[in-house]
Amino acid sequence: MSNTNSLPMDCLKMVFNLFPNWKRATEVKKLGYKLHGNPFSTNTRRVLAVLFEKGLSYEPITVDLKAGEHKKDSFLSLNPFGQVPVLEDGNLKLSESRAITQYIAYVHSSRGTQLLNLQSHETMAILTMWMEIEAHQFDPFASKLTWEQVIKPIFGLETDHMVVKENEACLEKVLDVYEKRLGESRFLACNTFTLADLHHLPNIQFLLDTPTKRLFENRPKVRNWVHEITSREAWKMACDQEESWFGKSGNK
Amino acid sequence: MSNTNSLPMDCLKMVFNLFPNWKRATEVKKLGYKLHGNPFSTNTRRVLAVLFEKGLSYEPITVDLKAGEHKKDSFLSLNPFGQVPVLEDGNLKLSESRAITQYIAYVHSSRGTQLLNLQSHETMAILTMWMEIEAHQFDPFASKLTWEQVIKPIFGLETDHMVVKENEACLEKVLDVYEKRLGESRFLACNTFTLADLHHLPNIQFLLDTPTKRLFENRPKVRNWVHEITSREAWKMACDQEESWFGKSGNK
Repeated sequence: MSNTNSLPMDCLKMVFNLFPNWKRATEVKKLGYKLHGNPFSTNTRRVLAVLFEKGLSYEPITVDLKAGEHKKDSFLSLNPFGQVPVLEDGNLKLSESRAITQYIAYVHSSRGTQLLNLQSHETMAILTMWMEIEAHQFDPFASKLTWEQVIKPIFGLETDHMVVKENEACLEKVLDVYEKRLGESRFLACNTFTLADLHHLPNIQFLLDTPTKRLFENRPKVRNWVHEITSREAWKMACDQEESWFGKSGNK
Repeated sequence: MSNTNSLPMDCLKMVFNLFPNWKRATEVKKLGYKLHGNPFSTNTRRVLAVLFEKGLSYEPITVDLKAGEHKKDSFLSLNPFGQVPVLEDGNLKLSESRAITQYIAYVHSSRGTQLLNLQSHETMAILTMWMEIEAHQFDPFASKLTWEQVIKPIFGLETDHMVVKENEACLEKVLDVYEKRLGESRFLACNTFTLADLHHLPNIQFLLDTPTKRLFENRPKVRNWVHEITSREAWKMACDQEESWFGKSGNK
């Protein structure tokens, strides 16, 4: 998908005039990302954020989570774990949002925002470590808090306030580490915005509409970081995709 | 640490004769990996497996988990999340076992077992997806089962059989997906052993000594895969490191 992006446009035009069929194939390829998901799902939004940071288009294919479409055979053939999103790029079918973000960031490493830190093995190791910290230290608590306070009410279920309390206590300790780190570095992995920051966005955005917001607000460095990453244009676009997915009627 | 590995030996010898101090520095560097951890910890063993697959030496620094050394200031300065292992490579200090394994596999990509699948973005994407599946689909249940049935008894705590039952039911569903996948591919990511398989080893090894073993045994493809990956020489060495860590007295 990235190959044509690095070729000068004049050269491409000349080649396309000689091989018109290849032009059509390339055009199809350029529109080739199909994203099966739901714009309200945290994991789908993680992928949308990367697509917009890279200035890439995609074809949205809505999976109706309320109707349980992600547990039906047609979707299970794409991802047997029954979870959105799935990215289709030609014959490649990828699940797991953080694998999809890394794939897009590598394929398009020279395009748009530089989301990786490819200078050396050491800088990539620090970035990978902070991606793992998001996945194993931050996400378990943040996801439970999002589930209890945002998703359960949507499905008419009751928030378990004891679970919220326990997970907030754990998240506080994680954010204390972040507060110290963000005193040493503008972003988590280094002084520029990377995938390590981006992976946090979906849960943080939802939690800013819940009482858990105070955990981010109470820590000055974390508060500034949250403000900076949630203000990014690409992230705002990722949160504003209802029309692309459901059309103007907004039928969800 | 990898640089000297790719230089022809004759060339190195000549350089070392001219600069004997550099030879000493290089030898020290070759022994430069310090691994803070505990050979009974699943996450430490994950890193040990990679070191042995790559034929690398390391300096073991025991963190006494029973004495809570991982929650004391000296260790928290290495990893503020208070978890083993931590790899020190010169000034680089890395936590999160899966970030450490990826770092070592990249730095030493041309040495020992090929643990990555670097042929193309697509093959790496599939590998990354299976690493993410281990982390987000397999590990949450497998880790809880290891905790309940292996670790809690070591600390004199009682196994909660209801938690075991719930997590076994979830793990069964995950292993059903693995059974299908391993009918299409010899290993999870491709037809060769990679980090995606290796990351599973520590929990599987502990669970083979518990009643959960039957979940692996009941599925022919999974059973063969488990047998093949747990039989690897490097893995056996990773599980047999007590003497390196505690000396001949075996004092843990």
